[in-house]
Amino acid sequence: MSTAWRVVIVGGGFGGLRAAQNLKSDFVEVTLVDRRNYHLFQPLLYQVATGSLSAGEIASPLRGVLSGQKNTRVLLGTVVDLDPESKHVTLQDGAVLQYDSLIVATGSQTSYFGHNEWQEWAPGLKSIEEATTIRHKILYAFEVAERISDPAQRRAWLTFVIVGAGPTGVELAGAIAEIARQTLRNDFRSIHPEEAEVILLDGAPRVLMNFPEDLAEKATRSLGQLGVQVKCGEMVQHVDKEGLTIASGGQADTIAAKTVIWAGGITASPLGKILATRTKAETDKGGRIKVQPDLTVPNYQDIYVVGDLASAADEHGKPLPGLAQVAMQGGAYAAKAILRRVKGQPELPPFRYFDKGSLAVIGRAAAVANVFGMHLSGFLAWLVWVSIHLMYLVTFQNRLTVFIQWAIQDLTFNRGARLITGVAPTDFNFDREVSGVRSAPEITLR
Amino acid sequence: MSTAWRVVIVGGGFGGLRAAQNLKSDFVEVTLVDRRNYHLFQPLLYQVATGSLSAGEIASPLRGVLSGQKNTRVLLGTVVDLDPESKHVTLQDGAVLQYDSLIVATGSQTSYFGHNEWQEWAPGLKSIEEATTIRHKILYAFEVAERISDPAQRRAWLTFVIVGAGPTGVELAGAIAEIARQTLRNDFRSIHPEEAEVILLDGAPRVLMNFPEDLAEKATRSLGQLGVQVKCGEMVQHVDKEGLTIASGGQADTIAAKTVIWAGGITASPLGKILATRTKAETDKGGRIKVQPDLTVPNYQDIYVVGDLASAADEHGKPLPGLAQVAMQGGAYAAKAILRRVKGQPELPPFRYFDKGSLAVIGRAAAVANVFGMHLSGFLAWLVWVSIHLMYLVTFQNRLTVFIQWAIQDLTFNRGARLITGVAPTDFNFDREVSGVRSAPEITLR
Repeated sequence: MSTAWRVVIVGGGFGGLRAAQNLKSDFVEVTLVDRRNYHLFQPLLYQVATGSLSAGEIASPLRGVLSGQKNTRVLLGTVVDLDPESKHVTLQDGAVLQYDSLIVATGSQTSYFGHNEWQEWAPGLKSIEEATTIRHKILYAFEVAERISDPAQRRAWLTFVIVGAGPTGVELAGAIAEIARQTLRNDFRSIHPEEAEVILLDGAPRVLMNFPEDLAEKATRSLGQLGVQVKCGEMVQHVDKEGLTIASGGQADTIAAKTVIWAGGITASPLGKILATRTKAETDKGGRIKVQPDLTVPNYQDIYVVGDLASAADEHGKPLPGLAQVAMQGGAYAAKAILRRVKGQPELPPFRYFDKGSLAVIGRAAAVANVFGMHLSGFLAWLVWVSIHLMYLVTFQNRLTVFIQWAIQDLTFNRGARLITGVAPTDFNFDREVSGVRSAPEITLR
Repeated sequence: MSTAWRVVIVGGGFGGLRAAQNLKSDFVEVTLVDRRNYHLFQPLLYQVATGSLSAGEIASPLRGVLSGQKNTRVLLGTVVDLDPESKHVTLQDGAVLQYDSLIVATGSQTSYFGHNEWQEWAPGLKSIEEATTIRHKILYAFEVAERISDPAQRRAWLTFVIVGAGPTGVELAGAIAEIARQTLRNDFRSIHPEEAEVILLDGAPRVLMNFPEDLAEKATRSLGQLGVQVKCGEMVQHVDKEGLTIASGGQADTIAAKTVIWAGGITASPLGKILATRTKAETDKGGRIKVQPDLTVPNYQDIYVVGDLASAADEHGKPLPGLAQVAMQGGAYAAKAILRRVKGQPELPPFRYFDKGSLAVIGRAAAVANVFGMHLSGFLAWLVWVSIHLMYLVTFQNRLTVFIQWAIQDLTFNRGARLITGVAPTDFNFDREVSGVRSAPEITLR
């Protein structure tokens, strides 16, 4: 039996993976536990949802990424409990992992603000499966519209609503507008895909609340040029099979839309609640664990929480945003702190997030970027966005194929991955939906 | 209302797509109906199943491929009936498509020879969904083995059986052996993936019955070098959750294997039966429609059957094999025959299949090829295989990304697409399966 210091990392996202990579050392034995066998590059998930990239291009098998680290073991499993006193976590199958240091990096999940019943009609975008579902819904909607004769029904199938105007919502709306206006332009014979309505909704007074106001304005203008209707200050009251009800002020309004995508909010992953119960740690209203300045849980200096699950503050007391950068820097910090401790070196100063900036892309060759204090927009911002995202993709193989897909797409507007695969969502049965089918022999050629 | 000659094509595989492409002409109005919105390059599906390629790399959206043909319309739908007298087909939703000429190219599906209950434990490889399921099963098996302590159970999880030693079976077996011996070599800490057993079974006396004997022998040798056990002359008696029972002569034998893949046989797609009933056409024992020398159904000169659904004979009366080449040439022939007829030109001579040869790849940089009468094996055959497959991929985009994936993989042995996604197959519940879990703190480092 080895006597090395045992580090258990729960979650192989940006925080957990970075921690594991920085713990490559003979001083520690690392076990990384994840429900999935891959690391997912979440910021590009919307491109899988909109048919630009394949899942394999933004995901890397965790075992492959870490196979060169002989001190590291990857376990496929779900952590369902932990005991901070006897220092172990329990997996769903009953297996127990003893730790000397624990890093909890299980991130966040989509929040419907108490309306989980909306999920059926408005999928979120956190996993490859959800991205495939959204892709399915978007592409299928055009297929149904092509075959339907009733104008109101057809309009509902050609209306796409994205709830939430953060970066993901903005990027989704831009990509869907491009699909309608560019990619599918010549693909149909009865409908004009460019007549599709793409609506981006948010309860906040403007898009991209985490960005400076001038960039948000530029983003709104770019979205408008792509044909996206931006509606801010609108609260969602209800979502169902036929669309959604929104309200601004006292006024309620109904939008008939067969495709609604939820980019509206996130909440802590389930392990957060268990961790809070077991350690009596406080949580914020999103369920995130309020951590100490060194990212540990109060009273448990061996438990680090990094990434979206942690509620940490910057030097002004402002909570840090749920960004990949925050998670990666947190993971690196926890790894370094643990190695110092094991080696008997002095403690690290408190965690400081170094804000490299934020980015959102709006369709082809346009973006907004707030980097190193500079406000960029348009093509230049897009170049920054492309470079940074390629740089951070985990493997060289992914970088190369993503680059090529983008290059081809920018030259041709083609989206090679626009496949309808997998099981249809519950509300989706082509042959059930299409009641008023056009009699097909009447081919209208354009 | 247009008065052009109406051609309905059912199926967007090799035969149907080629027919549609060759019918680009103002003389005809073409409607291509498919259940899927994409053309699938079936010969590379085993690479999706074994994590070398992503689904998007071997599939092309039909609308995209045909968007430049203004006389062609793509419909997403399932044909459930046809009336050869009033000349129409009926879709599942009740829509009716009137035709002047019909091309039926719905292909084949996996046959379990009357044992459809085996499908649950031994998926076939005909669709992207099945490829994803097989990938899931293969990768998950190593994950379970890593965590299980009982040696017999672990052996069963590390035993992979492929039923059927045609090209697909040979290619799958070779790829799985490579995954175990190369790709995953350094990825696990408790198991040695290279100890996995890969068994290729067939009832026939040798592998690759459609190939010349010397090439089949070479293929068997190459498989042996990769560590595949080839067992010929073995009939499958039973398949279930725990493995399968095989028999040669009077002797029955049981193989404990958690992963069984069925590459054992095909049968005509369901529309074949309907077509046979409605036209009173004869079928062969695989359910394929016995067509005339001009690929039409007897007594119905307006109905062509091409590809795997057609039972056609070569000039020596030998039935043509179910290959992409046969389907493509059949589709091209039907298109040409229809255009001649519409233009009032003389009839074509009977369909003649031009056999360009057959190919099967066995792992990295090895293949067997029977091309233009030459028997090639090893690296040269593999080069031919690579060139031909890249050439026939439908779009430039796919060609480029597949080429790059292969190049990287051949340099690194890495398989970037080895993701476990989607819903687990019914027999697959990690936390239910793993009963005798090893106590994880005992990390055995190699």
